[in-house]
Amino acid sequence: MHDQKPEAPLLNPEVTRLKPKKRVGLVVVITGYGKGKTSSAVGMLVRACGHGMRVCMIQFMKGDLYTGEWDGIRRLACEVELIPAGMGFCGIEGNPYPHSVHREAAQRAIGLAEKKIDSGRFDLVILDEVNNALKLRLVDLDQVLNLIQRKPSLMHLILTGRDAHPDIIQLADTVSEVQEIKHAYRRNIEPQPGIDF
Amino acid sequence: MHDQKPEAPLLNPEVTRLKPKKRVGLVVVITGYGKGKTSSAVGMLVRACGHGMRVCMIQFMKGDLYTGEWDGIRRLACEVELIPAGMGFCGIEGNPYPHSVHREAAQRAIGLAEKKIDSGRFDLVILDEVNNALKLRLVDLDQVLNLIQRKPSLMHLILTGRDAHPDIIQLADTVSEVQEIKHAYRRNIEPQPGIDF
Repeated sequence: MHDQKPEAPLLNPEVTRLKPKKRVGLVVVITGYGKGKTSSAVGMLVRACGHGMRVCMIQFMKGDLYTGEWDGIRRLACEVELIPAGMGFCGIEGNPYPHSVHREAAQRAIGLAEKKIDSGRFDLVILDEVNNALKLRLVDLDQVLNLIQRKPSLMHLILTGRDAHPDIIQLADTVSEVQEIKHAYRRNIEPQPGIDF
Repeated sequence: MHDQKPEAPLLNPEVTRLKPKKRVGLVVVITGYGKGKTSSAVGMLVRACGHGMRVCMIQFMKGDLYTGEWDGIRRLACEVELIPAGMGFCGIEGNPYPHSVHREAAQRAIGLAEKKIDSGRFDLVILDEVNNALKLRLVDLDQVLNLIQRKPSLMHLILTGRDAHPDIIQLADTVSEVQEIKHAYRRNIEPQPGIDF
């Protein structure tokens, strides 16, 4: 433990610790068009860290635009490997790279994911934006299904990104769809640090 | 900076940093019945930390059941104050406390939130499960609206929990509803560390 802070002031003196009789490595999908998919995965990364687990987070598509979670995760005294492996969101305005370059980067990320999953070193692997990468044909369905199927049974695997494929939802244990009720950018509020990036 | 890890291997050598012309303190609501509300807030906490922001997270209701984010957040080399101020989920099976005890704890949490918001020390304040606490009448609508209205203009405020009140959604800038598509517990898989707690 690298505890640098005093114990949080738990007002409740009796804290129960859940201990599942059976440990299971879950497949979790966080999809939908609302805000809070990657941040949810980062939250679970923190949760896993709190349990002393080792985490690897591979970001598909992301990598060209600075986001605070990169430095935030680096400030965690935990075994976390973070790999922003993308070239930005394929096809959006302002992104200069052709599909082939995005696909090449995503294919490298798939290879990395295979290696990390097979290494057995990690208790949690996060494939951030992989659903979106699949939708945009930067990776193939078989490749993602293969990653899910080859994972060690006790390893958790989180797949984020909009437009999750039905076959992936089918294989997953827990699936959430984050719907947008409203978003600041629709009122022309620019993305704000600490919330949006 | 307390960098203990090497720079993450950004495959993309050109990273752009967004700089909004106008800084805005956002009110963000994460509601719904699916998995990923608190974890989303913790992810934004990490994002904010990455930007060097100071964060206070007050957890309504939570406090009786250990969750990995407590230790995970303590392992962040950032200015984060975490206050699990609750006595567990009011009314669920196994929780021994009457409504009055839960309300008392939630009222203490409201007082704390006021103090933390007014202090001006924080760039981000998270009121975890406050929507749920309101729905269960542990806090009053006026109290939560008051917290939103009194916040410094550049401070971000995140309110999580199911059943967000329409008046709070009305005031918020960004609102996501996390819907459950499926959840492992429905197949009698017990809550798993690193994902569910």
